[in-house]
Amino acid sequence: MTDSVYSRRRALVEERYERHVALKNSPIEGNGIFERYTNPIITAESIPPTWRYDYNPQTNPYFMERLGVNATLNSGAIKWGDKYVLMVRVEGMDRKSFFALAESPNGIDNFRFVGRPITMPDTDVPGTNVYDMRLTRHEDGWIYGLFCVERHDDSKPGDLSAATAACGIARTHDLVNWERLPDLVSRSQQRNVVLHPEFFNGKYALYTRPQDGFIDTGSGGGIGWALVDDITHAVVTEETIIDPRYYHTIKEVKNGEGPHPIKTSRGWLHLAHGVRGCASGLRYVLYLYMTALDEPWRAIATPGGYFMAPVGEEYVGDVMNVLFSNGWIADEDGRVFIYYASSDTRMHVATSTVDRLVDYCFGTPVDGLFTGESVRAINRLIDSNEAYLGK
Amino acid sequence: MTDSVYSRRRALVEERYERHVALKNSPIEGNGIFERYTNPIITAESIPPTWRYDYNPQTNPYFMERLGVNATLNSGAIKWGDKYVLMVRVEGMDRKSFFALAESPNGIDNFRFVGRPITMPDTDVPGTNVYDMRLTRHEDGWIYGLFCVERHDDSKPGDLSAATAACGIARTHDLVNWERLPDLVSRSQQRNVVLHPEFFNGKYALYTRPQDGFIDTGSGGGIGWALVDDITHAVVTEETIIDPRYYHTIKEVKNGEGPHPIKTSRGWLHLAHGVRGCASGLRYVLYLYMTALDEPWRAIATPGGYFMAPVGEEYVGDVMNVLFSNGWIADEDGRVFIYYASSDTRMHVATSTVDRLVDYCFGTPVDGLFTGESVRAINRLIDSNEAYLGK
Repeated sequence: MTDSVYSRRRALVEERYERHVALKNSPIEGNGIFERYTNPIITAESIPPTWRYDYNPQTNPYFMERLGVNATLNSGAIKWGDKYVLMVRVEGMDRKSFFALAESPNGIDNFRFVGRPITMPDTDVPGTNVYDMRLTRHEDGWIYGLFCVERHDDSKPGDLSAATAACGIARTHDLVNWERLPDLVSRSQQRNVVLHPEFFNGKYALYTRPQDGFIDTGSGGGIGWALVDDITHAVVTEETIIDPRYYHTIKEVKNGEGPHPIKTSRGWLHLAHGVRGCASGLRYVLYLYMTALDEPWRAIATPGGYFMAPVGEEYVGDVMNVLFSNGWIADEDGRVFIYYASSDTRMHVATSTVDRLVDYCFGTPVDGLFTGESVRAINRLIDSNEAYLGK
Repeated sequence: MTDSVYSRRRALVEERYERHVALKNSPIEGNGIFERYTNPIITAESIPPTWRYDYNPQTNPYFMERLGVNATLNSGAIKWGDKYVLMVRVEGMDRKSFFALAESPNGIDNFRFVGRPITMPDTDVPGTNVYDMRLTRHEDGWIYGLFCVERHDDSKPGDLSAATAACGIARTHDLVNWERLPDLVSRSQQRNVVLHPEFFNGKYALYTRPQDGFIDTGSGGGIGWALVDDITHAVVTEETIIDPRYYHTIKEVKNGEGPHPIKTSRGWLHLAHGVRGCASGLRYVLYLYMTALDEPWRAIATPGGYFMAPVGEEYVGDVMNVLFSNGWIADEDGRVFIYYASSDTRMHVATSTVDRLVDYCFGTPVDGLFTGESVRAINRLIDSNEAYLGK
């Protein structure tokens, strides 16, 4: 009797998993700048059953889930041979997350987790949580993973929610075995730190997001630029804000670099997130900007408004109203695969090309910062359209 | 003309109501621990039309709703003869809630409200609101209802949102006529107080949730255990925290006992809710734990992570991202009916068995509290699966 429950449920779970990971994806034509796809690419259902179920009928007679997974979200991305590989943030039902590799033959569907959850070496003080890895194939020959490490803030013993966020640094040659380096040393807490893929004046270059506290980004702030002499003992001594927050824009409350920028003939193409407050909490959207090839801290294109914001079911999840990306892949043929999570719950892909994204950055008016400027911009557009259309 | 509007609308409303309450439910197979069902069991549409509409065409020619209901949520539960009975928190469009009885022949569908809204006697200081009743058939022969009573905090006259929360206590022999007892006297505000069904050392035993303020649970805290000499003048003098909150778990911000625990051969089986903060507000999930039969305050099984969290449309409602339960029924045949509300809006049922829930409690690893421990737990599971599967 128990054995038949086990057999029936095991067959059901395995069949459901195989059907889920074999799901095909189709592009949805939208505003021309990028295409969304019909299905998420990775969800909690994508986790292999052997990571979640005890297969021994003696110890799991009902074939019940033992280590449930809550969500798959903010993933780093890298092309690896002919595979599209994501370093997925997997969050268990216990709220702790870890990294795991999923790969696809085409970048848009059939993602499967491979190997095992990554065993990330700890530093002397273990991290309570790790998440949001940015992958950078650096010209020094290593692949780096920079991620957020969260620990309780023991200076506030009475406050169970008091936490500190630091930038963890690790490197690898195979994505599986990681050498952990000391956490980034910085005057403030750090999240959303990204390693630039090239040396700058012989130094490692970081995009940073200095924070006064764990959540509060403090006064001023924005996306910073910092140089580091030795990545094995990385110390930030000076940070320059290269993309500030601004009142009544999509990045009024917070912003942060996404994955490392893509090198194009016209400049470095950046993907970032911007955050504003509203009555139901924070709203996270994605935006693009470009910096000069020879001076990656100097903005040369800042298209106004957001690039992508939640639509439909993307609005809903563990943390509502959030799009977040820390991974994209620029393919040899000019295609760009943008990997983004919706509402801290599931992973999606959007595709575009370098040419289209650069055209978007230079062709979209900058934010005029006042409603009157927005109306004038629209009228200029209508004027030129009427001239062109001969009205 | 008016008469035909009345007739058409009355027929429509009555037909829609009958169709709604006759809706059948089917189980959805999931992780093996419990089954969700295809439909909510009680919604605002389940309220009888005579509670909402004025049926007199002279005074209501358009047959318009006069006393609209906003939501049906956090319900106590009890088996009553062969009926499955819920003490539903019904919330009007005026934001005030009250209790009303709904019953079903099978526990999973065809719930119908019976009688009238419960007239709960007041204490000397009327409650502005009452909600979330826990029903306990106590061995003293009474059925008790413990619920939250909210009143304005008049010590803060300028603050319209300043409120106090106390535990209201009432008892009955028929679920309809209630004897109101004095509110629980306690050093702190109290919500989520639950009466244990048995005497302990000749005293009444309560699960409590001491609060420093109305919403803030303060430092420390968690689910408490307290003994009371006289339930007709209940005073808490000493509280022991038996299930504390903890940093970076599903119960970091708050937790609270659900319905009273179910007595099983291996211990008392508890259902509770845990709360964490996120960028879109608080997230409420359900979890289980077990305590010793002879010492109901001593935890003997604490499975890590949540038991149930919102999925699909459960995420969305008046208060997003909330599952809450204060009622379940353990049937004679070992089946367990878990009654839970999603997002403070509607009632659902999930079913399991005592055997499966106890197996879940003892078979699920405890929360390791660090990401590294979570990864090690998954690796141990994969190791044993590979050994069993002969890889």
